[in-house]
Amino acid sequence: MTYCLAIRVDQGLVFAGDTRSNAGSDYVASYRKLYVFDAGEDRSLTLLTAGSLATTQELVASLKRDLLATDGRESLRTPQHLFEVAAYIGRMSRAIQASHEASLGRSGVSGEATLILGGQISGGDPEIFLIYPQGNFIHASEDTPYLQIGENKYGKPMLDRLVSPQLSLEQAARLALISLDATVRSNVTVGLPFDVALYGRDSFGPPQVRRFTSSDPYFVSLRQAWQANVSQAFENLPPLPPVG
Amino acid sequence: MTYCLAIRVDQGLVFAGDTRSNAGSDYVASYRKLYVFDAGEDRSLTLLTAGSLATTQELVASLKRDLLATDGRESLRTPQHLFEVAAYIGRMSRAIQASHEASLGRSGVSGEATLILGGQISGGDPEIFLIYPQGNFIHASEDTPYLQIGENKYGKPMLDRLVSPQLSLEQAARLALISLDATVRSNVTVGLPFDVALYGRDSFGPPQVRRFTSSDPYFVSLRQAWQANVSQAFENLPPLPPVG
Repeated sequence: MTYCLAIRVDQGLVFAGDTRSNAGSDYVASYRKLYVFDAGEDRSLTLLTAGSLATTQELVASLKRDLLATDGRESLRTPQHLFEVAAYIGRMSRAIQASHEASLGRSGVSGEATLILGGQISGGDPEIFLIYPQGNFIHASEDTPYLQIGENKYGKPMLDRLVSPQLSLEQAARLALISLDATVRSNVTVGLPFDVALYGRDSFGPPQVRRFTSSDPYFVSLRQAWQANVSQAFENLPPLPPVG
Repeated sequence: MTYCLAIRVDQGLVFAGDTRSNAGSDYVASYRKLYVFDAGEDRSLTLLTAGSLATTQELVASLKRDLLATDGRESLRTPQHLFEVAAYIGRMSRAIQASHEASLGRSGVSGEATLILGGQISGGDPEIFLIYPQGNFIHASEDTPYLQIGENKYGKPMLDRLVSPQLSLEQAARLALISLDATVRSNVTVGLPFDVALYGRDSFGPPQVRRFTSSDPYFVSLRQAWQANVSQAFENLPPLPPVG
């Protein structure tokens, strides 16, 4: 299982994901699910991946291959708009899934992949897209300025309570860590370390990527402070009045 | 959809559930899912229901019929231990599901029901059981002193952070409301009003049942205070240190 999310705030974009990959509960390994692409100085592109690891690894390798090709083919470098990049990735994801569908189907295994693409291309605003296994996609809204893939339920309540476009990039990154932490507590197939990427609006460079292990001093202090603060928040609630 | 939970604390038991019932998203109605049974002065029995409304209504009607029967049949009154009550309800639930299985199967509809039974029988401790559609059952543990049925994911993180056997009955009821509120915010098929029942250890009477509508003054104040306190808890977290 996987849990990744992206948040769009006025200051830019935050991407975050866990690194747990498992085939059943008896084969668990750590894989990066956050990819940053160098596709030219006019754009910044980051991808979060969930679903079949075989599909997403082949997808990322194919995207990189096309970036290196010199035959003028379509690549992450060519579209003028971010939604066209989403469409290109969606088509490639669908094609990879289709190429394995017959054999996977015979084994009753799914090769589906769900993706979040985010970034900015010169002339446009920073944006995030959720790309479905079918290749179509949606973007975040003003009211719900975040997208999630994978095991999204445990981490959603705190996002809904605390997210807003006015959060700073740093606050949005902190919120993403809180949302990830809620998920790892409740689902053992989502696990540390966490990767977090911060993209500042109009910077057009690679985002600042940071990795948090379970022993990272900041992450340990964040976890402890959140637990203590939430307990205090609960204790300070008005008590249920006695039946009158 | 449904979300119900029960919490076992040293002082007794708390039961809570929403009242939203739906057949698709275009037929939504309100139904009680929390039932209290009068089965004798030596016991207190409360049931929470999730799944097929037809199954759970027939189950509750059958349990009541058996209580009124004078032919000495098995009923909620006859077992000497709470786990035997769970087994009796499990058998009845399975029998009702089986009686409709062929016709429901032809329509591709599930008649499954999942239940939480809780209470106390003289000579035993207060206990809560989760009864599966198959009729088998589990009880809560010291480490995880709560059980959930229905849409359980959104409401689980705060339970995991805040629950403990040392909570007072009142605090456990408050926590149940917080857990329910997280769920209604994220899933429209779970809805108010909420029913909450408080059972004090060794009281052997019916629990105190309270209903909270969305305009209930206490519930409104609880909701507002929780939102404000959680926002404050987030603001007081240590900020992400700059890259060194």
